[in-house]
Amino acid sequence: MPNSLTIAEHPAITDLWLIGIGTGSPQHLTLEGQQALREAAVILIPHKGAGKDDLAELRLQIIRASGSTAQIIPFDYPQRDPTLPYQTRVTLWHDEIAARWQAALAQAERAGPVALLVWGDPSLYDSTLRIAERLTPRPKLRVVPGITAIQALTAAHTLPLNTVNGPVQVTTGRRLREHGWPEDAETLVVMLDGDCSFQTLAPEGLDIWWGAFLGMDEQILHHGPLATSTAPIIAARQEARARHGWIMDIYLLRRSDPISA
Amino acid sequence: MPNSLTIAEHPAITDLWLIGIGTGSPQHLTLEGQQALREAAVILIPHKGAGKDDLAELRLQIIRASGSTAQIIPFDYPQRDPTLPYQTRVTLWHDEIAARWQAALAQAERAGPVALLVWGDPSLYDSTLRIAERLTPRPKLRVVPGITAIQALTAAHTLPLNTVNGPVQVTTGRRLREHGWPEDAETLVVMLDGDCSFQTLAPEGLDIWWGAFLGMDEQILHHGPLATSTAPIIAARQEARARHGWIMDIYLLRRSDPISA
Ligand SMILES: C[S@@+](CC[C@H](N)C(=O)[O-])C[C@H]1O[C@@H](n2cnc3c(N)ncnc32)[C@H](O)[C@@H]1O
Ligand SMILES: C[S@@+](CC[C@H](N)C(=O)[O-])C[C@H]1O[C@@H](n2cnc3c(N)ncnc32)[C@H](O)[C@@H]1O
Repeated sequence: MPNSLTIAEHPAITDLWLIGIGTGSPQHLTLEGQQALREAAVILIPHKGAGKDDLAELRLQIIRASGSTAQIIPFDYPQRDPTLPYQTRVTLWHDEIAARWQAALAQAERAGPVALLVWGDPSLYDSTLRIAERLTPRPKLRVVPGITAIQALTAAHTLPLNTVNGPVQVTTGRRLREHGWPEDAETLVVMLDGDCSFQTLAPEGLDIWWGAFLGMDEQILHHGPLATSTAPIIAARQEARARHGWIMDIYLLRRSDPISA
Repeated sequence: MPNSLTIAEHPAITDLWLIGIGTGSPQHLTLEGQQALREAAVILIPHKGAGKDDLAELRLQIIRASGSTAQIIPFDYPQRDPTLPYQTRVTLWHDEIAARWQAALAQAERAGPVALLVWGDPSLYDSTLRIAERLTPRPKLRVVPGITAIQALTAAHTLPLNTVNGPVQVTTGRRLREHGWPEDAETLVVMLDGDCSFQTLAPEGLDIWWGAFLGMDEQILHHGPLATSTAPIIAARQEARARHGWIMDIYLLRRSDPISA
């Protein structure tokens, strides 16, 4: 991953808008998001390569539906170098993405706010804000909140996120595998889990609410006691993933005997 | 609080839509929420009594701006009986609200989906879903997700909610006071805190991002090390609350030496 572009060669981004677009349904867009797409001069669109082209199409559909007349500039996503240690790999990858934003902007035909469409909400398990911090000079940042996968999950299940006044933890599949059930947790939401890590837990006393492709036509839901849900969810996930080529899923686990109430 | 209305006396709600409207800005509404307001036959609007009339006005503004032609039926919020123990008080209060929804619907001039506008997202620290469960016959429920105060806070501060792959806990002011800093927490979001409970923590090694009236014209933000932020936030909160008559605030606390990264 040669860092051949130095950021200073290209026009500076003075206003950068990170617009949360929700997690699958074009109807998740907020009025603020719609307005921001209309007011942006330029929109940068990533090409992530084979596999997730449905998502690229969804982004274009959202832009078209908003009535935006912004110039759309695509940029290629760099590959992560698998030979590097995790932290270094991520850091270099973020540097490279920032450089590619700058390079893409060399094609900009007009001045004005530059927008990026961010999946879900820009604050939640997303690196766009961290990449934006790498730009020099540092642009004026604006974040437009968007519906997260957590909200798409609870809405689809018509499920409260918390028990009455109860706490909630949000974590990743990797942390759940490595650390197990957090001792004092009552409600646990797990994201970024390619391995159905719920199967590593002792299932007694836990209920699960699972959802894949939330907000999309392909949406799949399952809920029940973890003990009897593990096998059906793993099977449904495998089948859907094979059919689709990729999958996005999230789940909420709750103790059946809530500690608070 | 006499439970004088039996639910069966009034027309049944067959479709009940809980529409998240975001947390202060009418621009938080999603396209799905806008569409749902347009398709609803009836919208129930609570009158919470003196103090929070700004919020009633915001609801009407959102409905008007959506182009909805639904019939709007107001209902009065019951008082909670302060002499009862907490659980009983909340249970009876929820029963009474459900009965008032039913009673208000006796004024409905047309059949069709009944909508309620819910502050933020209906899944997060909100009782509307639990009240809806009390209706008999049980209506077909639909939840439309909305921008939460958590997202309004992180957007306003252009702040990631989590560290890279790090966990997040969401809790209430009361739990923070009673249980202190959760041992394994890195990022903690505190809601429903009328007492600036962050002042009960040992501030060393913690940073705070605080926001009040998020998404509104009156929005106030503060961030910094907790040690030097406690006094200014308490002062700003007191002043704003006195000027306004009420206040809504939320904050995020993060260890300055994140455990994950
Ligand atoms: C990189 S994170 C981005 C999260 C996003 N910023 C948000 O606000 O939801 C991707 C993870 O979000 C969850 N996710 C996102 N969209 C989803 C969807 N439509 N259905 C199910 N899970 C989804 C999955 O857990 C996935 O691994
Ligand atoms: C009963 S809860 C409702 C939360 C709502 N359902 C949501 O999704 O954000 C009310 C709490 O949300 C937070 N809150 C809601 N709106 C807010 C705003 N505009 N500014 C700051 N805090 C807000 C405060 O912590 C308040 O105590």
